[in-house]
Amino acid sequence: MVLGGSLVEVESLEYVELQGWIRTNRCSGKLGFIELNDGTYFRNAQLVYDHQLAMFDTIAKYPTGAAVSVTGKLKRTPEGKQPFEIIVAEMQLEGDCDRDYPLQKKRHSFEYMREIAHLRPRANSFYAIYRLRSILSMAIHEFFQNQGFVYVHTPIITGNDGEGAGEMFCATTRSDDHYEEDFFGKQAFLTVTGQLHVEAFAMAFRDVYTFGPAFRAENSHTSRHASEFWMIEPEIAFADLDDDMELIEDMIKYCIDYVLENAPEEMKFFEKMIDKDCIRRISEVRDSEFKRMTYSEAIALLQKADVKFENRDIYWGMDLNAEHERYLCEQVVKGPVFLTDYPKEIKAFYMRVNDDQKTVAACDLLVPGVGELVGGSQREERYDVLNARMDEMGMGKESLQWYMDLRRYGGCKHAGFGLGFDRFLMYLTGMQNIRDVQPFPRTPNNLLF
Amino acid sequence: MVLGGSLVEVESLEYVELQGWIRTNRCSGKLGFIELNDGTYFRNAQLVYDHQLAMFDTIAKYPTGAAVSVTGKLKRTPEGKQPFEIIVAEMQLEGDCDRDYPLQKKRHSFEYMREIAHLRPRANSFYAIYRLRSILSMAIHEFFQNQGFVYVHTPIITGNDGEGAGEMFCATTRSDDHYEEDFFGKQAFLTVTGQLHVEAFAMAFRDVYTFGPAFRAENSHTSRHASEFWMIEPEIAFADLDDDMELIEDMIKYCIDYVLENAPEEMKFFEKMIDKDCIRRISEVRDSEFKRMTYSEAIALLQKADVKFENRDIYWGMDLNAEHERYLCEQVVKGPVFLTDYPKEIKAFYMRVNDDQKTVAACDLLVPGVGELVGGSQREERYDVLNARMDEMGMGKESLQWYMDLRRYGGCKHAGFGLGFDRFLMYLTGMQNIRDVQPFPRTPNNLLF
Repeated sequence: MVLGGSLVEVESLEYVELQGWIRTNRCSGKLGFIELNDGTYFRNAQLVYDHQLAMFDTIAKYPTGAAVSVTGKLKRTPEGKQPFEIIVAEMQLEGDCDRDYPLQKKRHSFEYMREIAHLRPRANSFYAIYRLRSILSMAIHEFFQNQGFVYVHTPIITGNDGEGAGEMFCATTRSDDHYEEDFFGKQAFLTVTGQLHVEAFAMAFRDVYTFGPAFRAENSHTSRHASEFWMIEPEIAFADLDDDMELIEDMIKYCIDYVLENAPEEMKFFEKMIDKDCIRRISEVRDSEFKRMTYSEAIALLQKADVKFENRDIYWGMDLNAEHERYLCEQVVKGPVFLTDYPKEIKAFYMRVNDDQKTVAACDLLVPGVGELVGGSQREERYDVLNARMDEMGMGKESLQWYMDLRRYGGCKHAGFGLGFDRFLMYLTGMQNIRDVQPFPRTPNNLLF
Repeated sequence: MVLGGSLVEVESLEYVELQGWIRTNRCSGKLGFIELNDGTYFRNAQLVYDHQLAMFDTIAKYPTGAAVSVTGKLKRTPEGKQPFEIIVAEMQLEGDCDRDYPLQKKRHSFEYMREIAHLRPRANSFYAIYRLRSILSMAIHEFFQNQGFVYVHTPIITGNDGEGAGEMFCATTRSDDHYEEDFFGKQAFLTVTGQLHVEAFAMAFRDVYTFGPAFRAENSHTSRHASEFWMIEPEIAFADLDDDMELIEDMIKYCIDYVLENAPEEMKFFEKMIDKDCIRRISEVRDSEFKRMTYSEAIALLQKADVKFENRDIYWGMDLNAEHERYLCEQVVKGPVFLTDYPKEIKAFYMRVNDDQKTVAACDLLVPGVGELVGGSQREERYDVLNARMDEMGMGKESLQWYMDLRRYGGCKHAGFGLGFDRFLMYLTGMQNIRDVQPFPRTPNNLLF
């Protein structure tokens, strides 16, 4: 029997077998109760052991954290907190737990838990978040595969230093800068995006996606930045910015539906313990029509807004802050909104220049509660325009000639987007720190485990 | 309409719309034929265009590789090579193709294709392998998720230099060895395995798996080694080596079934063009009972074998070569076989020491055609034994104290295995070089793109 399975299946059995870890063990002298978690289900099973058992005194001493196997009688308890309990017949210690086990019953701060990242998956909040992480990953794969998208493992190690998104780690086998003698015969980096590589595959398979790790060597100490994180980057050919926004909307809604359906216990936990609003918030997004607004319209609205922003210097050409983004979706639109057609100066080199020559066919999805959740764009498919943009931005083109050449060989219009997986998880659950949704987070000066 | 969809769905339409890339365009003067691939299906659609079309001469000049959109009449051709053709009504150039396009009709060597990795997904062999790669990835996820396994994103950047499997890349933002002033305040590496980290999660969720990139900075120039590759590493708690071998067998069979069912066109292509034996070979494995044999039995069999091995120095304690492994599964067992209980000296520090104190509870799955496909083991769950093993091997223990501590806090018996995803793909298809199954392969002195 596993708790994640169906209770109905085991009901006909007189005895059940279970393995798991003791969450609590309390004993009143004649009767003992163990909360046992078997790893397959968010909730614990209650084990009841009686003083008539020969090993009663032994069982009473099993500590929190210990691994045990148990045989017992399943007893339905429809009036109780649990739908059933298990009356212990036999029990065996599978792995003892030292008395300095940090996860005793009392609560710990999330900060402290980061120092015991090897143990924290056993604590409720993390137990819930990591299972949700797994379920959400599957939602992503199912969404794309069901529509025939091809999953591409874009490379982690890259020779392109101009991928256009922040500082990069170097991957090396040397302890100096003689990169011409390095492992690859030149300097190698950890990727900041799979987009450029996956575009090559969109020109063969039409609809493709990556889902893998990406890296930023930025000295950021915010709750939303990690040096290593997972990204989802779809790319669609014969598609423009409108198609891109439709795909984003479909994906977000699919994923919300999926987690509400497949992780109801976990989502109830987050609603109760982390963010009272999370289920309502994401359900509303799922049921909303995503609105669209140009960046220029947004600037005009912000300029006449009767709100005391921290940054009140609103002008066309600025990068919006989270407070502006949240005002737009929370106060103006009262729901999810795509901002489109940003000034080209504040966006990446590969975004398609609009006919006005000032803006690019980019979109950011803003959602209530956090602001920007997804960034996408139609890509510049015109070789000459791309070439001029790269010159304008002073980019070295040698290592990206292959990327530019995609435009010379049947390069049709195409679009795509990037979704930070960890941030999406934060958004769905209300978890406030990216360090608490990743298994073993990596941030500046922090490389435990 | 997309070719990967159902023909039945579009049959009722008078006109269909299609976008794709021209594979060939030949024109006889009065009638032209275009083989068009739309990215969604292995086979091409045949477009027929007639000289009565106003743009006949224009279409006739569309080159191989160009992206086009087309509107036309669907015509069933049950006697023809294709089940249907499309009689062109309108056609538009979506992306021209320069005349130096390397993928003209003539065949290129795989070696040459590696130099145009950004274009090769459009060539048949690669088009087939990359779609299969995507489908096989999904098979892996479905296999584990259907059984309630939790997917864990183990970290790529690690502080553990003793993960026990080969040379490592360093991840740094410096160009010297002052690692104490480096980004993480100490030396950081690219992971060679997610196993150690995922064990921590098995102690919370019972059944878990990783599926992500791993790295080896080994100066190997063989056809089976890449510096970056994807690995699948499941870990199961309350499980021993027998459970582990059952899981391996189930997974391999599930994946074979999955690709035969979901990629029949691609598998037929591999059978026809790459390895005449591949479908028969993997079907037999799927239908076989995987046998089991101890390493000691294998040594005895090899010693009395009447075969001229290249390496004929067979003794207990040696590492087996591929020729020995292939002899055992191809000649002796005539099917898949698990070799178990290897000498501890030739296996990793975390494998569980058997009662004989000489061997460990490890298993390698050997399959006809390649030899070793999967390596697994029961893990050493006894703190003292693990500690002694690490001392014996002279391992630094400081950075792995957290891993050892898992044994002090409810660390029950557990087991797991590692499967190299790229090699599995080679095995299924008969592709001979790992560089030809990865999107953008990384090997020593090779970092194009």
